[in-house]
Amino acid sequence: MKDGKVIATLKDAILRSGLKNGMRISFHHHLRNGDGVMNMVLAELAAMGYRDLTLNSSSVFDVQSPIIDHVKSGLVGRIETNYMGAKVGRFISEGGMKEPVVFRSHGGRPSAIENGVTPIDVAFVAAPAADPMGNATGKRGKSACGSLGYAEADARCARHTIVVTDNLVPYPLEDALIQEQWVDGVVSVDSIGDPQGIVSGTTRLTRDPVALAMARTTVDVIRASGLLKDGFSFQTGAGGASLAAATFLKDVMLAEKIQGSFALGGVTGAIVDMLNAGCFRSIMDVQCFDLGAVASIRDNPRHVEISATRYASPTSKSCCVDSLDAAILGATEIDTDFNVNVHTDSNGSIMGGSGGHSDVAAGAKLCIVVAPLIRARLPIVTDRVTTISTPGRTVDVLVTQKGAAVNPGRADLRDRLAEAGVKIADIHDLKAAAEKLTGAPCRPARGTREVAKVMYRDETQIDSIKSVK
Amino acid sequence: MKDGKVIATLKDAILRSGLKNGMRISFHHHLRNGDGVMNMVLAELAAMGYRDLTLNSSSVFDVQSPIIDHVKSGLVGRIETNYMGAKVGRFISEGGMKEPVVFRSHGGRPSAIENGVTPIDVAFVAAPAADPMGNATGKRGKSACGSLGYAEADARCARHTIVVTDNLVPYPLEDALIQEQWVDGVVSVDSIGDPQGIVSGTTRLTRDPVALAMARTTVDVIRASGLLKDGFSFQTGAGGASLAAATFLKDVMLAEKIQGSFALGGVTGAIVDMLNAGCFRSIMDVQCFDLGAVASIRDNPRHVEISATRYASPTSKSCCVDSLDAAILGATEIDTDFNVNVHTDSNGSIMGGSGGHSDVAAGAKLCIVVAPLIRARLPIVTDRVTTISTPGRTVDVLVTQKGAAVNPGRADLRDRLAEAGVKIADIHDLKAAAEKLTGAPCRPARGTREVAKVMYRDETQIDSIKSVK
Repeated sequence: MKDGKVIATLKDAILRSGLKNGMRISFHHHLRNGDGVMNMVLAELAAMGYRDLTLNSSSVFDVQSPIIDHVKSGLVGRIETNYMGAKVGRFISEGGMKEPVVFRSHGGRPSAIENGVTPIDVAFVAAPAADPMGNATGKRGKSACGSLGYAEADARCARHTIVVTDNLVPYPLEDALIQEQWVDGVVSVDSIGDPQGIVSGTTRLTRDPVALAMARTTVDVIRASGLLKDGFSFQTGAGGASLAAATFLKDVMLAEKIQGSFALGGVTGAIVDMLNAGCFRSIMDVQCFDLGAVASIRDNPRHVEISATRYASPTSKSCCVDSLDAAILGATEIDTDFNVNVHTDSNGSIMGGSGGHSDVAAGAKLCIVVAPLIRARLPIVTDRVTTISTPGRTVDVLVTQKGAAVNPGRADLRDRLAEAGVKIADIHDLKAAAEKLTGAPCRPARGTREVAKVMYRDETQIDSIKSVK
Repeated sequence: MKDGKVIATLKDAILRSGLKNGMRISFHHHLRNGDGVMNMVLAELAAMGYRDLTLNSSSVFDVQSPIIDHVKSGLVGRIETNYMGAKVGRFISEGGMKEPVVFRSHGGRPSAIENGVTPIDVAFVAAPAADPMGNATGKRGKSACGSLGYAEADARCARHTIVVTDNLVPYPLEDALIQEQWVDGVVSVDSIGDPQGIVSGTTRLTRDPVALAMARTTVDVIRASGLLKDGFSFQTGAGGASLAAATFLKDVMLAEKIQGSFALGGVTGAIVDMLNAGCFRSIMDVQCFDLGAVASIRDNPRHVEISATRYASPTSKSCCVDSLDAAILGATEIDTDFNVNVHTDSNGSIMGGSGGHSDVAAGAKLCIVVAPLIRARLPIVTDRVTTISTPGRTVDVLVTQKGAAVNPGRADLRDRLAEAGVKIADIHDLKAAAEKLTGAPCRPARGTREVAKVMYRDETQIDSIKSVK
């Protein structure tokens, strides 16, 4: 049993998996733009002559653009993902693939896997540390990425699970989110990825005055909402304004001696700083964004690794987002009905995806979308977003550098903000103000072919992404 | 969401569960002979007028003998368990129940739950700490019991899961083996059990010379087997000879600077001492036997809580017992084919069950059964055990105070032991030696009615327990 499930080569592991043409394979994206495993596996599958596979990955990054060739060759026949970088996105938007891409959310994906909507035949789990029986973690090793939360449902539910690691450690690897009872084979390779692309260093506070202004308003909104009290829970992202808001919020919580309950996410060093300063009792972490988060989840028992199911699955009996007070989210576009687009750029070309955006918006008591009025000389507020990623009914406030617009469905919140002196703006006025500076945006004509389906977290189709011309 | 899933009364929680007559309810036994939850729930179900339920519990202890009345009244129509104490056991053996009890093993039970052999309708999970969304642990609280490993499959797979706690803590309870995504309701009660019955204090080393002699021979067998080297893994029980063997083994490992990999179990303070002394890198813990183990699993990240599935499920892709080197197990009887009985006493009356016995025997490279030649004036070695709990083909050595008998199928091991100077005896000679002292045992005549089925871990029936007269 010393060698356990270790298989000499990736090819042998694939042969033993019983993978056949037409089946579905899966990957996680915790190695982000440093991932080497998806490319390695697809190259091997191509060499072995496979055809027409469904590729289900929690995200697709630019480093994975060899996918394009594998689509062209016929190896990859369908793609399902929660996020797609601009390189592969451009290819898809230009009609490079016969079958539309299926977008899900970070909560909808594990739900669909568990419920047999998208059953995984063979899961490939890139693991920064694994033992010979397949227990695996992302917390340790030269390719450490922290949480492996998005890989848990894949490993647990796949018919066959292959762990690929560059750091084989002695049995038993104790702190294993990916557990041996689900794993069929372990393949040891020289490298699962490029550490430079896996995590960023600790991010410095932005100096952008627009971002700083929005961050201050965001914190004002949170304070005025009445949620910022003992037990407060919080999620924010890794963008400049989000990180700045976390920093400002930390100062407020410390000054006012507010003891929050938990921070959720998508975790950065800024959130870890809040934990260490005593702002929160714990961090529930489905994904680490930087080195600070990776070190913390490894060393601090209050920094807890959670599965994507526990994070955000809509068919779980509850999940962490259901208990969330305030969330700060970004937007590529937001329309006057508060619908948010994070899937496509202003030309309609795919360059993103929901990730956890729509899950968090649905769960949080206060969902704040932070976006500048104008980005790259284009207005962010529009009459109608190019693509609906997150429905407006789940968005409470838009914060811009020109004030906050409150969803008309949240009159209670509008009153609170007004009372607290937060600068309130009507979303139509924000749109007009932006267009005054940029002119009305000229929407490029789009094709009629559906290149991607956007599935809401409950697996209903919320939008359709059309080809670009 | 502050109150989350908290329901005011157990009755309300049951009403919401949709439980109907004829359905299957489940319980775990981590509170051992201090459990108050099963009695509380059954009393409530009786008051509500339920009939003909299947009771599936990982064990049934004497404290739960109110079951007898619930069987008589028709509330409990069928019992499935891995262990049954002598009080309820006697009632069953005397024919008190219409349907035969179904015995499984600690590994077979979660497998049967996961695979739909015994689907749980409503799981009741006694929890020493839980938050309002149902995240639960056994590590903290006045009723702390340590690991909740045997409850994991129930909570995860049941159609409806109700957590019952006497220690409601703020959300989120981080280190939760029982996770909110599986939990429907949380009921807060004054007490889930009697701490005196839940865990024992730290056990002192036995002074019984027979037990000490067997413990020394056991350690000699382990040394002679060739397995006691770096990477060694080990499981032992809570009996006198088992604990003494752990103590002696610790001395040997420290003297010889042997760095083991893991201890598995069923964990006592003696095993925790070995971890803390550096004998093992980690403990994989499905159940804590005493206060020392409870404190350690709470405080030491190297002491890991594992589910019963990860521990021993035969239908998992692997489990911890598969990687086990040496295990020390007990026996009520062992026959000349090395079959072991831990289900019934010499009269054939139920007073135990496999628990993990047959799982560990199947997994371990070296399975040592330790038993004195004679107990309560009865020989332990017999021609044929009253009940087969663990098949002889999975048992390697019997250690008695008169030497070690090796399974004929393990000639290699016999040679090693002989070479190392371990006193070897033929198992037939051990039987004869015992009978010389006690006389040939007089087997009481038994009834013909099947009162229990013993299912092996693979769900095949390995034996049938007949009624006593």
